[in-house]
Amino acid sequence: MKSFTYHQPTEIIFGSGKVNEVGEVVKKYGTRCLVVTTPAVEATLPMYNKVKQLLEDAGISVAHYDQVIPNPTTEVSAEGAKMAIEHRADVILGLGGGSSMDAAKAIAVEASHEGSAWDYLFYKKPPTEKTLPIVSISSTSGTGSQVTQVSVITNTEERDKSALYHPLIFPDACIVDPELMTTLPRFVTATTGFDVFCHAFESAIHPNRGAYVDLLAWEAIEYVAEFLPKVLDEPKNVAYREKMAWADTLAGLCIASAGVTLPHGMGMAIGGMYPHVAHGESLAIVYPACTRFTADSAPEQYGRMAQLFDSDLKGLSLEEASKHAESAVIKFLKKIGLYKKLSDVNMPEAEIEALAEQCMVLPDYESNPKVATKAEMIELVKASY
Amino acid sequence: MKSFTYHQPTEIIFGSGKVNEVGEVVKKYGTRCLVVTTPAVEATLPMYNKVKQLLEDAGISVAHYDQVIPNPTTEVSAEGAKMAIEHRADVILGLGGGSSMDAAKAIAVEASHEGSAWDYLFYKKPPTEKTLPIVSISSTSGTGSQVTQVSVITNTEERDKSALYHPLIFPDACIVDPELMTTLPRFVTATTGFDVFCHAFESAIHPNRGAYVDLLAWEAIEYVAEFLPKVLDEPKNVAYREKMAWADTLAGLCIASAGVTLPHGMGMAIGGMYPHVAHGESLAIVYPACTRFTADSAPEQYGRMAQLFDSDLKGLSLEEASKHAESAVIKFLKKIGLYKKLSDVNMPEAEIEALAEQCMVLPDYESNPKVATKAEMIELVKASY
Repeated sequence: MKSFTYHQPTEIIFGSGKVNEVGEVVKKYGTRCLVVTTPAVEATLPMYNKVKQLLEDAGISVAHYDQVIPNPTTEVSAEGAKMAIEHRADVILGLGGGSSMDAAKAIAVEASHEGSAWDYLFYKKPPTEKTLPIVSISSTSGTGSQVTQVSVITNTEERDKSALYHPLIFPDACIVDPELMTTLPRFVTATTGFDVFCHAFESAIHPNRGAYVDLLAWEAIEYVAEFLPKVLDEPKNVAYREKMAWADTLAGLCIASAGVTLPHGMGMAIGGMYPHVAHGESLAIVYPACTRFTADSAPEQYGRMAQLFDSDLKGLSLEEASKHAESAVIKFLKKIGLYKKLSDVNMPEAEIEALAEQCMVLPDYESNPKVATKAEMIELVKASY
Repeated sequence: MKSFTYHQPTEIIFGSGKVNEVGEVVKKYGTRCLVVTTPAVEATLPMYNKVKQLLEDAGISVAHYDQVIPNPTTEVSAEGAKMAIEHRADVILGLGGGSSMDAAKAIAVEASHEGSAWDYLFYKKPPTEKTLPIVSISSTSGTGSQVTQVSVITNTEERDKSALYHPLIFPDACIVDPELMTTLPRFVTATTGFDVFCHAFESAIHPNRGAYVDLLAWEAIEYVAEFLPKVLDEPKNVAYREKMAWADTLAGLCIASAGVTLPHGMGMAIGGMYPHVAHGESLAIVYPACTRFTADSAPEQYGRMAQLFDSDLKGLSLEEASKHAESAVIKFLKKIGLYKKLSDVNMPEAEIEALAEQCMVLPDYESNPKVATKAEMIELVKASY
């Protein structure tokens, strides 16, 4: 067996209705809480109000930073940290999708340290024990952020997307309540659900994987293959939402322990340069090309994935099935309405080479079973265009 | 899906040869280490010396408490704590099987708190943040103690076996190095290996189980069913030791999150009254009777287990297979040389009722899918006699 290290200290509180325990959970860590969310809209306002009320009922003093944007920026972190300091917050609660949970982590660092969150990116200064405790409530399935030590942040000035990555920003506790997810719009369900698959699958081909990650990853991949199409057909079905919420959590545990590879490296670059493209959408765009590029280098995993996405391949050996992995991915993307190209999201063709360069800034592509050269990266972007 | 809470903060460092990282690992938590082990014998002396040398090479000051006994007692904890205080230890390293790792946890509490470890049993005072950091190295597969918040202690005076149970006694880190296990005697391999199965299976029928525990438990059960007989045939086979070490760790994660049921309640009582009976041996003795008693109340799990222990049952439905669960367990116990009775370990027949009473002191039996009355408990003991 492969050697591995696994560390995941977040308390996971999973189940429909569990949001009602938020007061009790947050109280373990503090009495002055900054709630971090995106601006309220009709679908999210009741959830925000409910959580704030539950916190206040538990005797917790609440401030609410509600200006998180998708692909949250260094400005978001700075504003939120300012509000946390003014409120003398001793615990930060991220409530929402990956953007809100990631912003909460960055705020927990920036509110307790000199400088900005951007100074504490994974390759710069590590955050210290002063980092405020973090609680997460995920309302999508998802980015897995409720169980990861990662906070993805965009620096608008530098037109760059990068990440804080440190054990101190593991949420102390997370609540995963599938009932919060029944009102998610179709596009959000599809893109975040595909991201779940990507987290699990990229972990399953990652050099840092081990027996633990393999176990969690394939359970998550099987759940997405079966239940993402089903939940898109029946968005109010709580049983399906539960399966996706659990797959999301498993996949988050995988990236916390192993990590992502080429597709995520490309997806992050796309998100940095074209912030209007949703994260899961950027992944959907690059997956067919990345699959064609990599399948021969990890035929067992690509074969198993292909068989899950296309049951017609089940009779084949894994190696045979892996040769059909690209078409199996495309079949699944069509099923969930996400088969598209970079040209469909209005990327300027002239920027293909610039994007390819950006895809090689983060080290993710180097963890792929087959590492792309610059020329190959340009081909991958072109094929996705 | 069932709601659940899962929390497991221990850093797991898994793999053959990983013991070599012990200096680096312990150094994260302190510079003055008490190593806690059983008395050295020919098979363990090289391991003890190697670990102490590695610690010293990393600049750590080492003291060695080497008087742990099987089913460690309150005296062990008191002596170890005294040595920890004298050495001004700031980290406790449990090295060995469950006894050594459990003793290390009790010492970490007693050395940092008023009174004795026995004052901090799960139903008494909780330990505080003053608890010393704990690192574990498991040399058996095992008790799962390297990843649990449990320390089982025997009070000789009260002729009682009970447990400290608190998140603060989760080891901060554990090293699981299967190479340390290749010299284990056959009886230890068999009894500790059967204990792995019991941890996983009792978690899989426990009311606190959830999707996470189910996933880990069945992986562990499958591994034990396949690899425990194989490792008994080839004790030096590192690949088999790896499988059992991983099953042990998974099963430990299960009990840390769900828990044990009737068989463990009975096994703990046997261990308390007859300390010469090994823990896994006591479980082997009661499993057939407990299986007959419970199988109808959890037919899906007992059916699945029966099919793993007896491949002849694979064609049956789970419910049908569950009717053969007792004979499947006996078949497996014979295969691993552990099919025996209480009379075989010299329990006095006159103490049957006293033992039955003791089996109902710990709450474990109440977590069984079918809860035994006093009269039924006497029958269970009689059937195991």
